[in-house]
Amino acid sequence: MTENSKKQTEIAELGEFGLIQHLTEHLTLQNSSSEKGVGDDACVLEPGNRKVVVSTDMFTEGVHFNLMYFPLKHLGYKCVIGAISDILAMNAVPTQILVSIGISAKFSVEAIDELYSGISLACQNYGVDLVGGDTTSSMTGLVINVTAIGNEEENELIYRDGAQNNDLLCVTGDLGGAYMGLQLLERENEVYKVNQQMTPQFEGFDYILQRQLKPEARSDVKGLLKELEVKPSSMIDISDGLSSEVIHLCKQSNKGCKLFEETIPMDDQTKRMAEELSINPLVAALNGGEDFELLFTVPIDQHDKLKNNPNITIIGHMTDPKEGVRLVTTGGSEVALTAQGWNESNAE
Amino acid sequence: MTENSKKQTEIAELGEFGLIQHLTEHLTLQNSSSEKGVGDDACVLEPGNRKVVVSTDMFTEGVHFNLMYFPLKHLGYKCVIGAISDILAMNAVPTQILVSIGISAKFSVEAIDELYSGISLACQNYGVDLVGGDTTSSMTGLVINVTAIGNEEENELIYRDGAQNNDLLCVTGDLGGAYMGLQLLERENEVYKVNQQMTPQFEGFDYILQRQLKPEARSDVKGLLKELEVKPSSMIDISDGLSSEVIHLCKQSNKGCKLFEETIPMDDQTKRMAEELSINPLVAALNGGEDFELLFTVPIDQHDKLKNNPNITIIGHMTDPKEGVRLVTTGGSEVALTAQGWNESNAE
Repeated sequence: MTENSKKQTEIAELGEFGLIQHLTEHLTLQNSSSEKGVGDDACVLEPGNRKVVVSTDMFTEGVHFNLMYFPLKHLGYKCVIGAISDILAMNAVPTQILVSIGISAKFSVEAIDELYSGISLACQNYGVDLVGGDTTSSMTGLVINVTAIGNEEENELIYRDGAQNNDLLCVTGDLGGAYMGLQLLERENEVYKVNQQMTPQFEGFDYILQRQLKPEARSDVKGLLKELEVKPSSMIDISDGLSSEVIHLCKQSNKGCKLFEETIPMDDQTKRMAEELSINPLVAALNGGEDFELLFTVPIDQHDKLKNNPNITIIGHMTDPKEGVRLVTTGGSEVALTAQGWNESNAE
Repeated sequence: MTENSKKQTEIAELGEFGLIQHLTEHLTLQNSSSEKGVGDDACVLEPGNRKVVVSTDMFTEGVHFNLMYFPLKHLGYKCVIGAISDILAMNAVPTQILVSIGISAKFSVEAIDELYSGISLACQNYGVDLVGGDTTSSMTGLVINVTAIGNEEENELIYRDGAQNNDLLCVTGDLGGAYMGLQLLERENEVYKVNQQMTPQFEGFDYILQRQLKPEARSDVKGLLKELEVKPSSMIDISDGLSSEVIHLCKQSNKGCKLFEETIPMDDQTKRMAEELSINPLVAALNGGEDFELLFTVPIDQHDKLKNNPNITIIGHMTDPKEGVRLVTTGGSEVALTAQGWNESNAE
């Protein structure tokens, strides 16, 4: 918990409906497709002739976040980013979110306000309306579920299943930063638990901390690709780590792929922190997750439009499915790519 | 936990993606508006020229359900009912749901299958497609979030804010049954905790048990009202108890109301169980919740169309807002209606 100097109001003082009113009274709607927001049994949307896309994501305390070092405002922001990233991965425009929160008695109204200020900021930054939700109590920790809604014309949507043989595999931004930021926060938290006089050593690692604590969604990529006159054949966002997303694309498109280790974009801070902690940076990029970059495939004849673009890196190409999903290491050997789900990554 | 005789498979054996595939591989889509279901970053909906309505509900272990006596299949069913009831309260047709679950290590694959079999059954019974979701781990108990989507033509939608002075206040079915069913289950659970040889005493209370353990949503009311040629001026579903729903309607419509105690419909089993437990049955109806009946207002000139209808009871009428939200007791005295949120009702 990060706010201990200010006044703390118990949620029971407001009651459930008082809390909901308190949290929603300042909401204004910015999208024309948001006809009716919070305040009725359901929100009402008017998508016009466009397709509606919907995705939902759950975030649970102790699994997705540790409140010892994750400020509630940042948490609210990040949960929205994670949800709208799925809409962006359809090449659609995110327009609305609905947010359910389960809160235990330890949270004050001020704490929930912090959470909502992050949610509101993300809504504002991405032009998204908060149109509904549910506020309930939880016997244990904090749970947040964000349902994100977007829309787009049919021929603009990009699915996971459209990749073709020889298509180039591309990724935006850089990978592994969010994971190394998390490792840094965990390390400093361990130090702090032993000695609360120690000041955390974060210097020189602002980028990877930001990647973990205040990530952004790639809402710019849609326009970028339009400008380049490139239409991807398939797309997915990177929330669970590059490995599992590549495997998803291959599986859904019924293709294999060759991914080249040396081309995987990583920031210097990511590599430096990995070195400090004796972690192979490749593990951060492949299995780390939460980078919220976009992974997509494009026909090979689009190569010249993409090469040298500072926002996009070509990291491999699609193959016949019988060739499998392969990682070509810097040393030149080939290994099968494997995915980590949350069972492994959160086992600790 | 209800399934202890069958084989138990640890979720780690399947992994996250294996579990998702296992849970979704048999899904088929029944609605033409469901263009693409699970398997991509988001589902894709084609609502045609109709408005899209969306609602979301969170259910947490220990608050909304006790797994000591709540079978997982029934739980899955009930969570879907609770979510689509909100869509029905807009007078819209429920068409899709997205389900997020947070599960702790104590759950086996077979347990999650049970939960999903209830979700599937509800989808089947109500013609709804499961088009997406999120499956994640939880450090503590089970959390379920259901986002329900529906659609309808604009002039068919009914909001909470349309009630007029003198409109009749009507309710479907009967109230308080789900609450008294819960009290019965709680009593038998306490007995069982003390002496595990005792068989639970449920005889003669099948209706209130069903109201708690396998509630249904009033998807029939839309057709019923059409048949009667009645269009409500406002509508809301009863999930938190009659009191708070009446207060919501009054507040959103900026009206007062007079609610007559003696007209509130209650089943004999509800009254008998209340008597056995020395609870005022009125409390069950006003504050109990989870009945998933519909509360609506109609212009007073529609009185003859509704009177004596076995599915609908007139329980009061709307007034000028300055008259307040009043309950007229059987004894003839008048009291202000107050609402209970979860802070009070779940304080125990």
